[in-house]
Amino acid sequence: MTARKKKAPARKKSARAKAPRTKAPRKKAPRKKAPRKKAPRKKAPRKKKAPGKKAPAKKVARTRPSRRVFSFGNGRADGRASMRDLLGGKGANLAEMSHLGIPVPPGFTISTEVCGECQARGSLSRAVKSDILTALTRVERAIGKRFGNPDDPLLVSVRSGARVSMPGMMDTVLNLGLNDVTVRGLAARADARFAYDSYRRFIQMYGDVVLEVPRELFERCIEAVKEDRRVYLDTDLEAEDWQGIVRRFQEIVEVQTGKPFPQNPAEQLWGAVGAVFRSWGNDRAKAYRKLHDISDDWGTGVNVQAMVFGNMGDDCATGVVFTRNPTNGADHLYGEYLKNAQGEDVVAGVRTPQPIDDASRQGHAGKLPTLAEEMPAAYEELRGLCKRLEKHYREMQDIEFTIESGTLWLLQTRTGKRTPPAQVQVAVDFVRERLISQQEALLRVDASALDQLLHPMLDRSGPLTVLSTGLPASPGAGVGKVVFDAETAENRAKAGDKVILVRSETSPEDIVGMHASQGILTRTGGMTSHAAVVARGMGKCCVVGCEDLQVDPEQRLMRIGETVIREGDWLTLDGGSGEVILGKAPTVLPELGGAFDSLMKWADRYRKLKVRTNADTPQDALVARKFGAEGIGLCRTEHMFFEPARILAVRRMILANDEVEREKALEGLLPMQRSDFEGIFRAMDGLPVTIRLLDPPLHEFLPHEEDEKAELAKELGISLAVLRSKLEGLHEFNPMLGHRGCRLGVSYPEIYVTQVRAITEAACAVAAAGVRVKPEIMIPLVSHEGELERLRAQCEKTIGDVRAAFPGTRVRPAIGTMIEVPRAALTADVIAKHADFFSFGTNDLTQMGYALSRDDVGKFLPDYLEKGILEDDPFVSIDQEGIGQLVEIGAARGRATRPDLKLGVCGEHGGDPKSILFFARVGLDYVSCSPYRVPLARLAAAQAALSP
Amino acid sequence: MTARKKKAPARKKSARAKAPRTKAPRKKAPRKKAPRKKAPRKKAPRKKKAPGKKAPAKKVARTRPSRRVFSFGNGRADGRASMRDLLGGKGANLAEMSHLGIPVPPGFTISTEVCGECQARGSLSRAVKSDILTALTRVERAIGKRFGNPDDPLLVSVRSGARVSMPGMMDTVLNLGLNDVTVRGLAARADARFAYDSYRRFIQMYGDVVLEVPRELFERCIEAVKEDRRVYLDTDLEAEDWQGIVRRFQEIVEVQTGKPFPQNPAEQLWGAVGAVFRSWGNDRAKAYRKLHDISDDWGTGVNVQAMVFGNMGDDCATGVVFTRNPTNGADHLYGEYLKNAQGEDVVAGVRTPQPIDDASRQGHAGKLPTLAEEMPAAYEELRGLCKRLEKHYREMQDIEFTIESGTLWLLQTRTGKRTPPAQVQVAVDFVRERLISQQEALLRVDASALDQLLHPMLDRSGPLTVLSTGLPASPGAGVGKVVFDAETAENRAKAGDKVILVRSETSPEDIVGMHASQGILTRTGGMTSHAAVVARGMGKCCVVGCEDLQVDPEQRLMRIGETVIREGDWLTLDGGSGEVILGKAPTVLPELGGAFDSLMKWADRYRKLKVRTNADTPQDALVARKFGAEGIGLCRTEHMFFEPARILAVRRMILANDEVEREKALEGLLPMQRSDFEGIFRAMDGLPVTIRLLDPPLHEFLPHEEDEKAELAKELGISLAVLRSKLEGLHEFNPMLGHRGCRLGVSYPEIYVTQVRAITEAACAVAAAGVRVKPEIMIPLVSHEGELERLRAQCEKTIGDVRAAFPGTRVRPAIGTMIEVPRAALTADVIAKHADFFSFGTNDLTQMGYALSRDDVGKFLPDYLEKGILEDDPFVSIDQEGIGQLVEIGAARGRATRPDLKLGVCGEHGGDPKSILFFARVGLDYVSCSPYRVPLARLAAAQAALSP
Repeated sequence: MTARKKKAPARKKSARAKAPRTKAPRKKAPRKKAPRKKAPRKKAPRKKKAPGKKAPAKKVARTRPSRRVFSFGNGRADGRASMRDLLGGKGANLAEMSHLGIPVPPGFTISTEVCGECQARGSLSRAVKSDILTALTRVERAIGKRFGNPDDPLLVSVRSGARVSMPGMMDTVLNLGLNDVTVRGLAARADARFAYDSYRRFIQMYGDVVLEVPRELFERCIEAVKEDRRVYLDTDLEAEDWQGIVRRFQEIVEVQTGKPFPQNPAEQLWGAVGAVFRSWGNDRAKAYRKLHDISDDWGTGVNVQAMVFGNMGDDCATGVVFTRNPTNGADHLYGEYLKNAQGEDVVAGVRTPQPIDDASRQGHAGKLPTLAEEMPAAYEELRGLCKRLEKHYREMQDIEFTIESGTLWLLQTRTGKRTPPAQVQVAVDFVRERLISQQEALLRVDASALDQLLHPMLDRSGPLTVLSTGLPASPGAGVGKVVFDAETAENRAKAGDKVILVRSETSPEDIVGMHASQGILTRTGGMTSHAAVVARGMGKCCVVGCEDLQVDPEQRLMRIGETVIREGDWLTLDGGSGEVILGKAPTVLPELGGAFDSLMKWADRYRKLKVRTNADTPQDALVARKFGAEGIGLCRTEHMFFEPARILAVRRMILANDEVEREKALEGLLPMQRSDFEGIFRAMDGLPVTIRLLDPPLHEFLPHEEDEKAELAKELGISLAVLRSKLEGLHEFNPMLGHRGCRLGVSYPEIYVTQVRAITEAACAVAAAGVRVKPEIMIPLVSHEGELERLRAQCEKTIGDVRAAFPGTRVRPAIGTMIEVPRAALTADVIAKHADFFSFGTNDLTQMGYALSRDDVGKFLPDYLEKGILEDDPFVSIDQEGIGQLVEIGAARGRATRPDLKLGVCGEHGGDPKSILFFARVGLDYVSCSPYRVPLARLAAAQAALSP
Repeated sequence: MTARKKKAPARKKSARAKAPRTKAPRKKAPRKKAPRKKAPRKKAPRKKKAPGKKAPAKKVARTRPSRRVFSFGNGRADGRASMRDLLGGKGANLAEMSHLGIPVPPGFTISTEVCGECQARGSLSRAVKSDILTALTRVERAIGKRFGNPDDPLLVSVRSGARVSMPGMMDTVLNLGLNDVTVRGLAARADARFAYDSYRRFIQMYGDVVLEVPRELFERCIEAVKEDRRVYLDTDLEAEDWQGIVRRFQEIVEVQTGKPFPQNPAEQLWGAVGAVFRSWGNDRAKAYRKLHDISDDWGTGVNVQAMVFGNMGDDCATGVVFTRNPTNGADHLYGEYLKNAQGEDVVAGVRTPQPIDDASRQGHAGKLPTLAEEMPAAYEELRGLCKRLEKHYREMQDIEFTIESGTLWLLQTRTGKRTPPAQVQVAVDFVRERLISQQEALLRVDASALDQLLHPMLDRSGPLTVLSTGLPASPGAGVGKVVFDAETAENRAKAGDKVILVRSETSPEDIVGMHASQGILTRTGGMTSHAAVVARGMGKCCVVGCEDLQVDPEQRLMRIGETVIREGDWLTLDGGSGEVILGKAPTVLPELGGAFDSLMKWADRYRKLKVRTNADTPQDALVARKFGAEGIGLCRTEHMFFEPARILAVRRMILANDEVEREKALEGLLPMQRSDFEGIFRAMDGLPVTIRLLDPPLHEFLPHEEDEKAELAKELGISLAVLRSKLEGLHEFNPMLGHRGCRLGVSYPEIYVTQVRAITEAACAVAAAGVRVKPEIMIPLVSHEGELERLRAQCEKTIGDVRAAFPGTRVRPAIGTMIEVPRAALTADVIAKHADFFSFGTNDLTQMGYALSRDDVGKFLPDYLEKGILEDDPFVSIDQEGIGQLVEIGAARGRATRPDLKLGVCGEHGGDPKSILFFARVGLDYVSCSPYRVPLARLAAAQAALSP
């Protein structure tokens, strides 16, 4: 009845026969080699070459560069897992599984190199077609059926498979090989309903993917038939109904394309292969690649594979299984399946699937029976294969399977996507299971994803209005204003709003909008639906399959039971529990588990770069310390100035007519500043605290609105006209390059004197109370050594004065400077004469060195990224090619003058993993980043130390 | 009667005896050595060491580092001309003249090293005093008089003398050694009136300089006596009058200081020497040094010298002579003298002096008799000595002389200050006279002064209202608004006004105000008065001795005859003719003489750097071409946009709602731009023209005032509200780092396309008419190679389109970029892949690299210069230490990628001689500067090539 049944012994025999041969030479080797590395590719063939017997294997190795079609299945394969660049991930893994003797439907992979060729010439070359036909013959032989055979036709699937998985982005055609003649053979061998349902599915997919017939035409046609027949479900339609639908579909195709639906299976195959290659270039695939930094040049492979059917009856099923829980990394299978269904039905999220076992029930509301219960033998076989694949690949796997009439087939295996917590858990568990080393574990966790892990969770201490519960597809709390389409999500987010994207179901077109959202909520779909997979990859909170939800995008509202929520209303999601909560719920810091602690401990073991934090308050400092910060790298004093209780004193100081008035205003600020610093020093007991003296231009502290000006004039007891003229006097054309930073310290020495006094007094006071205080005074915007020389002398004098008032104190603040002006980096050798430390202000270095005003780039930077002039936003990841040179030069020249010079970085880049790798390479001592990014930075620092 | 008369034979004999010995070994050596260099100092002693006979000479050389007092006169000297760092210019030259056997009153120099010592300890050390007394004994012996001898006292002068002449900045005391007893001896030997006049002068100077008694007290006292005696002139007072004045002066001193006037000549000497040393640190000396880049560390020497008297009768005189005409460089003596006067009377400009010969009459209104007529023998001797000194020093000399009872003494010789035209003339004449080489001549002319030479002169083609004529003290036309004090001059100039400073006479306090003025006019003073000397040094137009002038600073007005001119009224001066002209007279370009042409020819012979000009119009281009520009290095297209006839079209373009509207507005601008370029290409026939595409942010072209906005809204037919919101949309926080330069070209490709089309069409059109056109298209603000790559491709496409419309045209514009963003310099290697040339925009490189917004630095840069944090304004002379590195890096990396890359600079620094030396050193191909600075740049480029 099916290929497999007939050929089962052959498969098993060949699997057994092959297993020892393929496994023996690889037993140790894979342990050492990461599966993606190129090295094994070369070694494996060489080992085979040594025996010198197996001509075909040798030929494979030799001719690979020109080989374009790679067969697999039946216990043998032309390819290998290591060949994913050439075969795509799916093709490489199918080959690898064949080598391992794992039951995969036989087939062949058309290499990624053909993708470019095919796109360039618009069709497949004669040579490729010939290779394909040869490979097809092998499949026919393996499965014992022939393509186009009217009695017992070979049917194939045609699927994409790129180097990196791009779920749902490219096209697929199933059941290819059916036509008006072969469908009758299939009907005779299986049953008529299944045969015509399969045929209509084929026409539908082929029509959509290859012939570009609008999808709705087919769907409307089915709906019409169902209405006509007064049935609700597809499954209620009979064989004759499907037969009728097939006819109507063929008419639709002919009307739309002007040609009848192709009946020649070979023609069908060329069309489908070409369309899948073309789908590499469709818009949603391009958008996905852009978001995931995937090169357009890689191309996709195409896998043509004998069909196996999960929809031939109740002893059939199709499903997806993860070898570990992808949400939390727990060590159990995690999967879903649908009985009597084709694989696409699971992934598409149209029907709600059943859990494969009890452990997979997590989040499944109902009490649907599991695969373990319904098909225990297939389940046990699957379980064994999962463990084997995981051990073989030394990675958690995401496996697609089909059970055709009780026989298990694996259609695909790949590295399983998982949430950041699962990344951590799996990596740490793998170390415990001695599958990988600590170093490998550290390199496997995506540092930038780690950040997600630390973001607030729902605060459950108070009451929450839970409207409904869906499937917890991706954890974390998402709080935002509801929007109903991706474009609105993107626009609102750009405008600074936090949004929750609510959809019936998501599709690949929604990716950018999902990225812009705080969380995603869908009505349909399971844990492996598009929304779930994509959201987990992004580390976004996501709840799927919330069936209580009604979405009305036209009216711009959603309903859950009685509750109506309109666009712009607040909504909260808990991606960990699947709860949908009314309004804007409070959030708290997550409890971090043991695996996280282990990973961080290992990170600290291997990293060389220290990690500090940017914190302006004792609260922030404590959070950061909890996350492992080893000091404060940047404490901005101006934030303290903006507090409502102080701003008037600050303004008095700024608008002072002379030094005397200014000093009087500063005297009022001194105790406040001192107490700020005391709090921070206490929070950072034993750790260094770098405090930056006043940096922004003074006009930033003054009001801009007319009513505020009037109020200020009244408070200061001056006329509005006088205030206005003072404000005008402070106006600057380019404040970034104006009267700010140390220039204020030169113009108004009393400001810096007051700040240094507050710092030193606070330090001496807390030191006297037993706190181990390590203050570091940082002078901003130095561009010429003369500035630092002068201000350092002034600081030292003030410090001396304060120390005299605390006899015997050991407090002796270090004095250093920001390197944030290009000239400072270039003359770091002379500036270092007056500095105990440098802290690179890479934000301003980028602004000045790149001529990019951060406040103004919105007018052109998006366009630059869009047009591909720039690859990255240089404010997100440091521009290593250009601005990076200034950091390198500054570090090298500073150290040349003063080998003990402490070097750090306190720009936003200090929390970006790519940038951290760079900072480690140029030899900085520490990075400083926001509190929540400290663990990420610790991990990235370890990765930097472990990377070659 | 005088020392000289008695000792004359001795002097002469010793002069003769010494001359051969000192001259012989130096005959050739000085030719090679510039007098200010240090090298000769070492060489000279070594040569002396070789013979090894002359113990004293050897001792001088050996012990010099510790020697502090250096004797001279009577044909021998401890010092040398080459020792000016140690002895000051005056002392070194007095020593040199002694060696040459030239008659100088004997004396000694206290070295500049003592200046620092004396300032540090507040008084002279015992060791120095002892050395001084020893040297004084030598003077006594040479002159045959003793210090303090009641019968025939030695009187001395005490004068400052720094490494570089600082005329009038420091203090002088004359006639020192007189007291109540010695005055009687002097009276007995000369005459009583002379003796008591000398004594009162001594008390007056000593009182002022040493005892700090207010000067006016003495002056008022003399006025009172004159009134009492009903006489008008000092010369009408009798011996008894002066005797009375001496008594009153002594009373004034005693009342003011609480002590009697010092009678002990040694005490007088310590006081005077100390005071002269202290005067190095007075405010006006400091201001002068700052203005002239003189280090505060150098210190002054003090010269103590036997007095000779020009005021002992009608066979006495005192004067100043230049060996060439300091105004135009003509080869004749140029000098003035006063009969029966002390030297200070000439310099102070109180009496109008007589010309020394007919050639010196230039500018002297009256027909006063000359020295050649009145004292022919002394004149002839002076003439001979002048030629000898000029040949000896191979430089034009400025000599002070005194004739005492018919005998000539030279008191000082130094390099003569001269106007820029005179610098050129003298240098070129010296080459013709084979005194110096062409190279030396080029190095001698101050390149930055050359600029003065080219500035407009009075246009005499129309009528001028000449109010009066004074002495033509420093040439050029000065046109400005009248002010009556230096402070107002400074303030008005800072506010952007052009001012003419009008004073009865200037004093050193006025220097900063003089610097800020377009010209200086004084009532009193001669060609060597303070105003004249200082103005010539500055290259400022100056008219002195305009006796018709009445100045009333209280009423803020001046009168010449009937005409009343109030502060703020326009006035014009011709410093070449001495004319004072009513109102704002028109000016024209000067005719440049043959000497200038020769010098420029030599400059072109030696220089390697090419010189282009920054010109936006055909008119500017033609001026520059006349001055020798070898192309246009920067033609700014935005200036064309500001023309009233075009600005509306430009605004339409900027405020366009879409590409179509924008293109329509641009179409309107295209023919205007094309005709601009045609004019420029014609003017620059055969020379390259670099045109920069639109650079400034678009909002710069839009109105800022409310009424202008309303008008524009009306013209565009939109509401004011819509216009306002568009203006707001264009607002930028830091326009310097914002949406400008090539970023506009990326955002609105049609703007650059239109410009490139206009350039190429213009080039093709004029080329078809036979003009040799070499257009270079320059893309501004490139920070990333991607920008240039994209825009270059776009330019090439447009050029191709235009060329297709001109079949067979050879026009093929080069395409290059500004290097003005630090990142561009750092990544010049990759940017060079897309550039035919680089032009360094050092203005913006400085703004960004130094974090200095040129529009905002006014708030702190003056303070930085004042406090000495920065030595130079980095916008005037390139910051070689920092920003210069970016130019060096950019040049080296650009050439590494593309060895034939053309490199230029088009910032303001391209016209600054110091910067030009730097640009030559880093290997640029050309500099580009404003038209008037082209000759300056040619000379500076030659100096760069000739400097080691």
